[in-house]
Amino acid sequence: MTQLTHLDDKGAARMVDVGGKQPTARAAIASGRIRMSQVALVAIRDGSGPKGDVLAAARIAGIMAAKQTGSLIPLCHPLALDAVTVDFTFEDDGLRVTARASLTGKTGVEMEAMTATSIALLTIYDMAKAIDKGMVIDAIRLIEKTGGKSGTWRAE
Amino acid sequence: MTQLTHLDDKGAARMVDVGGKQPTARAAIASGRIRMSQVALVAIRDGSGPKGDVLAAARIAGIMAAKQTGSLIPLCHPLALDAVTVDFTFEDDGLRVTARASLTGKTGVEMEAMTATSIALLTIYDMAKAIDKGMVIDAIRLIEKTGGKSGTWRAE
Amino acid sequence: MTQLTHLDDKGAARMVDVGGKQPTARAAIASGRIRMSQVALVAIRDGSGPKGDVLAAARIAGIMAAKQTGSLIPLCHPLALDAVTVDFTFEDDGLRVTARASLTGKTGVEMEAMTATSIALLTIYDMAKAIDKGMVIDAIRLIEKTGGKSGTWRAE
Amino acid sequence: MTQLTHLDDKGAARMVDVGGKQPTARAAIASGRIRMSQVALVAIRDGSGPKGDVLAAARIAGIMAAKQTGSLIPLCHPLALDAVTVDFTFEDDGLRVTARASLTGKTGVEMEAMTATSIALLTIYDMAKAIDKGMVIDAIRLIEKTGGKSGTWRAE
Amino acid sequence: MTQLTHLDDKGAARMVDVGGKQPTARAAIASGRIRMSQVALVAIRDGSGPKGDVLAAARIAGIMAAKQTGSLIPLCHPLALDAVTVDFTFEDDGLRVTARASLTGKTGVEMEAMTATSIALLTIYDMAKAIDKGMVIDAIRLIEKTGGKSGTWRAE
Amino acid sequence: MTQLTHLDDKGAARMVDVGGKQPTARAAIASGRIRMSQVALVAIRDGSGPKGDVLAAARIAGIMAAKQTGSLIPLCHPLALDAVTVDFTFEDDGLRVTARASLTGKTGVEMEAMTATSIALLTIYDMAKAIDKGMVIDAIRLIEKTGGKSGTWRAE
Repeated sequence: MTQLTHLDDKGAARMVDVGGKQPTARAAIASGRIRMSQVALVAIRDGSGPKGDVLAAARIAGIMAAKQTGSLIPLCHPLALDAVTVDFTFEDDGLRVTARASLTGKTGVEMEAMTATSIALLTIYDMAKAIDKGMVIDAIRLIEKTGGKSGTWRAE
Repeated sequence: MTQLTHLDDKGAARMVDVGGKQPTARAAIASGRIRMSQVALVAIRDGSGPKGDVLAAARIAGIMAAKQTGSLIPLCHPLALDAVTVDFTFEDDGLRVTARASLTGKTGVEMEAMTATSIALLTIYDMAKAIDKGMVIDAIRLIEKTGGKSGTWRAE
Repeated sequence: MTQLTHLDDKGAARMVDVGGKQPTARAAIASGRIRMSQVALVAIRDGSGPKGDVLAAARIAGIMAAKQTGSLIPLCHPLALDAVTVDFTFEDDGLRVTARASLTGKTGVEMEAMTATSIALLTIYDMAKAIDKGMVIDAIRLIEKTGGKSGTWRAE
Repeated sequence: MTQLTHLDDKGAARMVDVGGKQPTARAAIASGRIRMSQVALVAIRDGSGPKGDVLAAARIAGIMAAKQTGSLIPLCHPLALDAVTVDFTFEDDGLRVTARASLTGKTGVEMEAMTATSIALLTIYDMAKAIDKGMVIDAIRLIEKTGGKSGTWRAE
Repeated sequence: MTQLTHLDDKGAARMVDVGGKQPTARAAIASGRIRMSQVALVAIRDGSGPKGDVLAAARIAGIMAAKQTGSLIPLCHPLALDAVTVDFTFEDDGLRVTARASLTGKTGVEMEAMTATSIALLTIYDMAKAIDKGMVIDAIRLIEKTGGKSGTWRAE
Repeated sequence: MTQLTHLDDKGAARMVDVGGKQPTARAAIASGRIRMSQVALVAIRDGSGPKGDVLAAARIAGIMAAKQTGSLIPLCHPLALDAVTVDFTFEDDGLRVTARASLTGKTGVEMEAMTATSIALLTIYDMAKAIDKGMVIDAIRLIEKTGGKSGTWRAE
């Protein structure tokens, strides 16, 4: 029978016990997009050139949020991350954010990569919302995870 | 010329100065979706019945995250929220999260509603990812904002 | 019918909406006790004299926790506290902690006083637990609240 | 001579140095109670049935607080918890909260279990205080600790 | 007799009670310097050009820290800041950071400006310490405060 | 060519990847000073005697800040500290703060010692600023680091 690992046999929420697991090298990559008007897109691109801080702010916000994942997501373990990166790609109708987290530990870092992606996207929304309130964040998903007992997983 | 309000005239990031604004009643509604396999959807529905805590956990996470918005999004003001609600609707292929935030203050609560939505969705992802790692979060957007100088805005 | 204010009519948790309330002066006093062995009690008393930091650490922890109440208790509003004090009284078999919080705002500060009391007591436990693991924290209660629409309340 | 481990030989507060210790499996169980009127108790029980979130909110608050112990209690080490659970038992005149924390590490998790217990109790107080401000939190204590150099300890 | 406002008449730490004060417009400017080798200075300057994030990261860190002042400095009030800016000036032997904070409130924002300055400087140290561990942070001081009952103050 | 380790080859900020490093015993000592008027210095000294909490508050603030370093400094790793101490020395025209941090881990604790020092100094400023707003914080620097691949470093 299918069972949610974060519920005990009475349905109560719990942190999954990772006490018996061995630390191994693990990594996860997540990505997501924010779609926006051309006016907003141009403003962000201009605000990210030599003098601008837009993407720099979103990157820092994403990296800092990855480190707060255990405080934000109720049943996540607090993790000693080895590394976090957040990158941006301009697309025709918006921006793509890709985040990668890694650690040597007993549980995976999928949520850290997903959280970094989400907060970086929200930061972009915040900085451009005076121009375009209709921006839409979508396609936040796990792209790949490696390491751990279940091994490598890749989005189809 | 279009300008990002969060950048000064040299392109440096800053908090927008709300010092001259008068406090008024403001509210914002945001929503987003998480699409998943039927197996995961059934597990969450079962885990949200009499004995289950899944949506309760996601709701609490969203409400608590709304209160942390000023710590997560670099240029957001810390706000004294009057109220936050987070609601869930089951759809054919997933779940919809709708969050509403309100305050009497000098700046809007769009980011609080967007952040509550995002973290509630991430919490659902976290609790169901052992069943379905391919879940996709999308359509996070502002639905409506009211109050403030710019008045009411609604997504088309 | 009796209803919990923190649940909506479907039973879902929510922050109580204080948007329609007027800011007024409010205060709350809470207290609690920690009972311990004479050995532990003497050590704390000695560690609180000219050279010792025990009660100073517990006081600071309680004051800082009062400011974090909105982050710790899921449905509490983030509040702009006017003042917090934490005081200690030695008793025959332990210590009493009394905390007072106040603000000019739209909702009461009972939880801030209760949280300051609890964390100050836990800090004392932490600092003396190497001597006496059997210490018991009890009698944490609201002593008095003043201000707001419901006016003054005192514990019997 | 008895000495508090959290004070140095001049009486100054410090974190106990755990640098020379080996990581071992450790666990701690704590519990506490909240006594209340029958009206409040019935409301919580009703608010914890199929549609209600009361105990779910308290459980999440307790688990999340356990992860914040190192930020709340001044001299506690930040710990990479393996697991945390928070459970509730209805009693004639109130509720009992029992929390268990575990990790593989260099110092014990007593404070994490005590903190989870305290914050879960405060959350219940918060959610029912509109009905009964006279509720009393008591009997917060360590029930058992296992692991580490000092081995197993159980409350008498 | 001179008395520290953060101590009561028994010498115990407390938050100063601002309950009787009226909210007024207040601002504070602080600055500080970090001195470093030419090699480090050139690397930061290069890392702050079109492709670089050094000063952007320090600016974001300073702004976010200003919002955390009430959590970091034990007796500071949590404040609803209207605005924070952090600016940088290259000097011959290092960098100068200047931070400005403002609010409409019952207490001043000197500590917010001082904290933003300090954390921005520490972030620069962190990012350049692989090149030069001997960097020295100095001259952190309040430059000016305006507003409030005591009015304008300027450093000589 | 000199390169900042916290920037990738495109100049984007990142956390340095410590995944391939082995945990070793590491420690760091930092110090800093606050210069003030004799009136302020006497008040602090008096406020730090048998009844006073000034230095106790600053010490606790510094220790707690060391544990928050990974949340404050954007590219710092979250670290499981083994120990932190903060000490004070009265000088003719002010106070010196010295902080020591240590852990067994994959990266150094220089920033933890520097952050503890800075926040302890800011806390002293906060508590004495009603007497002397012209206090100056300076000479914050790393004194010594030990452990890790690069071995021991001492300030000249």
